Amino acid sequence: MTKTLSLAVNGDRLNKTLEELAQIGRQADHTIKRLAFSPDDLAARTRLIEWMKAAGMTVRIDAGSNIIGRYAGQEDEARSLATGSHIDTVFSGGRFDGSLGVMAGLEVVRVMQENNIQLYHPFEVIVFADEERTMIGSKAIAGTAPQDPEQYDTVNDEPIQDCLARAGGDWNNLQSAQRTAADIACFIELHVEQGGVLEAIGRDIGVVEGIVGQQRHRITIEGRTNHAGTTPMNMRRDALTTAAHLILAIEDIAKHFPGDPVATVGTLKIWPNSINTVPGSVELSLDIRDLSSDVVAHMLEQLRRKIETVAVATRTRIRIKPELQVEGTLAADSVQDLIVKSCEELGFSYTHLPSRASHDAQEMGRFTDMGMIFVPSKDGISHSSDEYTSPDQCIQGANVLLQTILKLDQHYR
Amino acid sequence: MTKTLSLAVNGDRLNKTLEELAQIGRQADHTIKRLAFSPDDLAARTRLIEWMKAAGMTVRIDAGSNIIGRYAGQEDEARSLATGSHIDTVFSGGRFDGSLGVMAGLEVVRVMQENNIQLYHPFEVIVFADEERTMIGSKAIAGTAPQDPEQYDTVNDEPIQDCLARAGGDWNNLQSAQRTAADIACFIELHVEQGGVLEAIGRDIGVVEGIVGQQRHRITIEGRTNHAGTTPMNMRRDALTTAAHLILAIEDIAKHFPGDPVATVGTLKIWPNSINTVPGSVELSLDIRDLSSDVVAHMLEQLRRKIETVAVATRTRIRIKPELQVEGTLAADSVQDLIVKSCEELGFSYTHLPSRASHDAQEMGRFTDMGMIFVPSKDGISHSSDEYTSPDQCIQGANVLLQTILKLDQHYR
Repeated sequence: MTKTLSLAVNGDRLNKTLEELAQIGRQADHTIKRLAFSPDDLAARTRLIEWMKAAGMTVRIDAGSNIIGRYAGQEDEARSLATGSHIDTVFSGGRFDGSLGVMAGLEVVRVMQENNIQLYHPFEVIVFADEERTMIGSKAIAGTAPQDPEQYDTVNDEPIQDCLARAGGDWNNLQSAQRTAADIACFIELHVEQGGVLEAIGRDIGVVEGIVGQQRHRITIEGRTNHAGTTPMNMRRDALTTAAHLILAIEDIAKHFPGDPVATVGTLKIWPNSINTVPGSVELSLDIRDLSSDVVAHMLEQLRRKIETVAVATRTRIRIKPELQVEGTLAADSVQDLIVKSCEELGFSYTHLPSRASHDAQEMGRFTDMGMIFVPSKDGISHSSDEYTSPDQCIQGANVLLQTILKLDQHYR
Repeated sequence: MTKTLSLAVNGDRLNKTLEELAQIGRQADHTIKRLAFSPDDLAARTRLIEWMKAAGMTVRIDAGSNIIGRYAGQEDEARSLATGSHIDTVFSGGRFDGSLGVMAGLEVVRVMQENNIQLYHPFEVIVFADEERTMIGSKAIAGTAPQDPEQYDTVNDEPIQDCLARAGGDWNNLQSAQRTAADIACFIELHVEQGGVLEAIGRDIGVVEGIVGQQRHRITIEGRTNHAGTTPMNMRRDALTTAAHLILAIEDIAKHFPGDPVATVGTLKIWPNSINTVPGSVELSLDIRDLSSDVVAHMLEQLRRKIETVAVATRTRIRIKPELQVEGTLAADSVQDLIVKSCEELGFSYTHLPSRASHDAQEMGRFTDMGMIFVPSKDGISHSSDEYTSPDQCIQGANVLLQTILKLDQHYR
């Protein structure tokens, strides 16, 4: 025990490796562009495999194109403990989103290797394929990947079969990538927050309670197009003022609902969109997220009641139509507790919070115990060259990951 | 006096001539398309000149391409009484907008001719050039036409000089078209309401109090673009919810301000307009109209105070920038009184109301006494094939015009 308690990651090595990875796909404007299955993504994957092997891991690529590095356990027949994240990026990505979790997993193995430590359980570091668009990697492992290849929205609409093949995967055997709780006891992912909560309240570490569910709806409002000069205020059926009532109602419902749900109107289309015409129709998008699908359902119920009142008051017709529904995933209490314990031992401040962005952990959590560790994002910025987490914060996150894994190794024994 | 009191227009002839005019430029979808200076507009103008001459008028075309038919008075050196409107249309116009006023003026002359009546004053029927886009006709007469030819927004961006020349006008002598109160004692225009007030309150005739002034502003809101999932509600600087507050404030100010001003947000642009992104900026148009420029100024002052409060509350930056300002024109009290008297004698119900659309009368009223008579528009619809005023309503309006002109002839004696 003394040995593991004094164990810590090599911070310089972690940040140096992170920077080395960032050089693959770095653009003139300092953004990182490693679109899934692109030459730069493949180059980064090759580098990862080299690093994993050098750290004493055996490496395989599954049918979902996931890279799975395995560090043998004392009891190699036991269920695995797993960590990981992704190294593909959006078009104009940052240096930390995904990459930190993978590099920290690698660093944990490097530390164990150089200290001749073997966990009781086998330990896996997983580089999930294409987190940013299709999530085919984590979905293949969770058994939640759509079976229709047309449903995969890849870059340039390239067939998903071709994408997978290029990265060592195999569409025709995708189900062979599926894992179960009998096989992976627990998955834990370190990730940058991509939001501003930790920075705003001054905490080092976020203990993720779960990954929120998401619903998208389209709201259409039909009023009456009219001359903006000749139509008195009380004779109007203005679709835009109606939209304004709904936009504020949506904000109000999210702000005052127990817990911290979020709801956003991100797009608005207006017809005829003419300066001297009372708007006749408006279309809005609604994005609504919470850990609890019950909360989302109750929020929508409140909104529907409000829509009825507003439609009568504004003499318009309002329809709301679901477009997307993703179930949330809760983090295991036991994993959260061990993250908390690790923070306390290391002297780091922490808070519990939900993850409001998607992560591979969301799919892993569908079949086994899951947990996530967040480190702060400066100004909450992500998917941008301004994405920033300090070297010290990266090290803190990796040390919490290391200590939590050591505790999980005891927990699942 | 007995003679003139029993005088009435020939309703069948009025509606028949109106229908004859509507055949010029009628499209397959029943809209009328007589864009100013187009072949169909020129054909209609030629027909008008023939009808005017047949009714005993002398006809000239001024430098502003206005057709001016003059019916001699008993005292032909006296100032003129004038009526008129326009026969050009928008791209998808109706049968009554503009045309009714011209046809009613022609009908008044036809009635006087067949009854051997001559007014004390000379009587003019004016067909104003291009009311729908540049208003160059009435502006040339009022002396308010811009001197820079680039400022005329003609169809297909054809030079205004060429447009005028094609219709008998002369850009280089435009100022020769200018008239004064020493020359025209009064101008009165019959027009369809293009709004729904008369129909809604069940009145036959609208006695126009004036033509409202108009201001256009551009409002820009700068918030902060953020991830719709990861940004808690209380950390947002959402430009769209800010816009919603302003849209409702604008409606509220217009609804509760004394008098019947109107204010409209007709266009809205949103950035980045992405479903899962909190909107970072929004741009709105504001169109605000009232008879009194003081009222418009006070409304804007209220809005500016509201903008300050909203900007602080939503932590956004809001700017409002003027883009257009058109002064309103009041109708002469004496002309309004004589319209009322005519309605009462003819047994028609009436109401006073402002004109919230632009008309040639707005420019004429800048230099001489002006009045307008409105007849109802079904459902308030205009600039559409659904524009409709019944044959009886057209006849009622023309009779009010006739009786008012007879009274004006006494009034200015």
